[in-house]
Amino acid sequence: MKGGLVVALSGGVGGAKLALGLSRVLPAQELLIVANTGDDFEHLGLSISPDIDTLSYVLAGLDNPVTGWGRRDETWSFMETIGALGGADWFRLGDRDLALHVERTRRLKAGETLSQVTADLSRRLGTATRVLPMSDDRVRTRVRSDSGWIDFQDYFVRQQCRPIVRELAFDGADKARAQPDIIAALKGGKVRAVVICPSNPFISIEPILAVPGMREAIAACGAPVVAVSPIVGGRAVKGPTAKMMQELGLVVSSASVAKRYRDLLTGYIVDEADAEGIPGKVHIASTLMTTLAEKEALARTVLTFADTLA
Amino acid sequence: MKGGLVVALSGGVGGAKLALGLSRVLPAQELLIVANTGDDFEHLGLSISPDIDTLSYVLAGLDNPVTGWGRRDETWSFMETIGALGGADWFRLGDRDLALHVERTRRLKAGETLSQVTADLSRRLGTATRVLPMSDDRVRTRVRSDSGWIDFQDYFVRQQCRPIVRELAFDGADKARAQPDIIAALKGGKVRAVVICPSNPFISIEPILAVPGMREAIAACGAPVVAVSPIVGGRAVKGPTAKMMQELGLVVSSASVAKRYRDLLTGYIVDEADAEGIPGKVHIASTLMTTLAEKEALARTVLTFADTLA
Repeated sequence: MKGGLVVALSGGVGGAKLALGLSRVLPAQELLIVANTGDDFEHLGLSISPDIDTLSYVLAGLDNPVTGWGRRDETWSFMETIGALGGADWFRLGDRDLALHVERTRRLKAGETLSQVTADLSRRLGTATRVLPMSDDRVRTRVRSDSGWIDFQDYFVRQQCRPIVRELAFDGADKARAQPDIIAALKGGKVRAVVICPSNPFISIEPILAVPGMREAIAACGAPVVAVSPIVGGRAVKGPTAKMMQELGLVVSSASVAKRYRDLLTGYIVDEADAEGIPGKVHIASTLMTTLAEKEALARTVLTFADTLA
Repeated sequence: MKGGLVVALSGGVGGAKLALGLSRVLPAQELLIVANTGDDFEHLGLSISPDIDTLSYVLAGLDNPVTGWGRRDETWSFMETIGALGGADWFRLGDRDLALHVERTRRLKAGETLSQVTADLSRRLGTATRVLPMSDDRVRTRVRSDSGWIDFQDYFVRQQCRPIVRELAFDGADKARAQPDIIAALKGGKVRAVVICPSNPFISIEPILAVPGMREAIAACGAPVVAVSPIVGGRAVKGPTAKMMQELGLVVSSASVAKRYRDLLTGYIVDEADAEGIPGKVHIASTLMTTLAEKEALARTVLTFADTLA
């Protein structure tokens, strides 16, 4: 395979699978993961960045194979106790996971940027892969349901995605500054491909693209932009993507996802059953990444396909 | 025994033994524990109140019999991880203990007083005994050693009491407002006794007495003021009391402790070996409280002695 920088946009669990695959088939200096921070929030006085953390844990091999989120070898004494003390226990924070939030919160308050803290903590967790937040400024995804606007984690975790989604907003995105190293990398002329990971388009990828200058820099970087559909066989592999699409009046299909990215995409990778009705260059592959080998295989497929589009 | 309110001044571990004894021989409404907050501090973004916590855990039967501090049935995943992430791990915070600090910090930031938070969290931990901070305002014990002034927990925990103590100061004490329920109780005319628990006089009891109005209210309450010496056989049972006395140029003896409280004391309880040279009413008792029975026995002794002085 040829060299150059691969820039991958990702949310949490779904996107992290492909990010892990990419990290295993590329040298560390040839991969940059751009993480969604729209679902970051403040909870129990802590600054929590769920997508950055999922990416960091997955890339470091520290993700929890049982829960699908959080850290492996986790203990839950803190959570048990905070519940007994009358504190909020709807967002599950393991004892080890908590250390990451406490240390990040302390360093942010001391004046470091989220990028700096993320770079250092990811390294200490044991991954060489670069993960950068889309912005060091505050962007907060909000959900309008029939009972009004609510915070994303309220919708996603506390209410378990039960409210019907009528509209999404990314508070602060219009004033956020794109993380400068991402923009510099996109403008550096050495980008091999931009990969949109199989994340939820509405709550994982669109917040990234909503940061001023991000979409433009991707479109202008001169490299192929390849998305992997999060829809397999007309259903979302995980999470509320399909439910959200229905509620927003869209057909649940890979084609609908492609339309969200339309003018940005050079190529699109969809599962066997989902190719119909998609304009442009489509590559069909098995996108359900269960094993590590499947993650690596899809990563290679994405890169090979992107290289043919260059 | 007669009724009335017993007000007990206490620091952490040593004082908490007698506080526990008192809580077991008195109805809950007849006991008020006044806790030192001079060794409170902010650490990892959390508001930590070591003496209040030790008292709450001991009174609720949740104290750790192995370490002598913190909670029983504790786990240490957070501490292990924060060290690996480059965070400060010199102050040992167990996973369960941490929940108390996180919840207190959140509630203080939301505008509750330390008294309110302490009352509610103590109740939730399972004790009916009232523990009140000496003040809801910030008081911070500082230690002057040969290398300058340092924060108390830096001296006490991080440097393990190694620096030579030349002077102590209680920053903020001069402007702190005594916790109003304590003053109201002392002025209410129903105090049976004020008990000064066998805590370190310099760093546990004197910060309490340094809060404006506290010493005066105790002196004026009309009830006997009885201290239990923290010195047994010319040595401190625990902690840096003896080392600190030597460094401050004092003889290590129960008499030296009595001199710190002199005009306040009605009576003094010392161990068999320490009675010499103490002015005023002295009662000799076994003050080394190892078992629960010994804690209850000393509590009864203190109350009976106080009643004879009334």
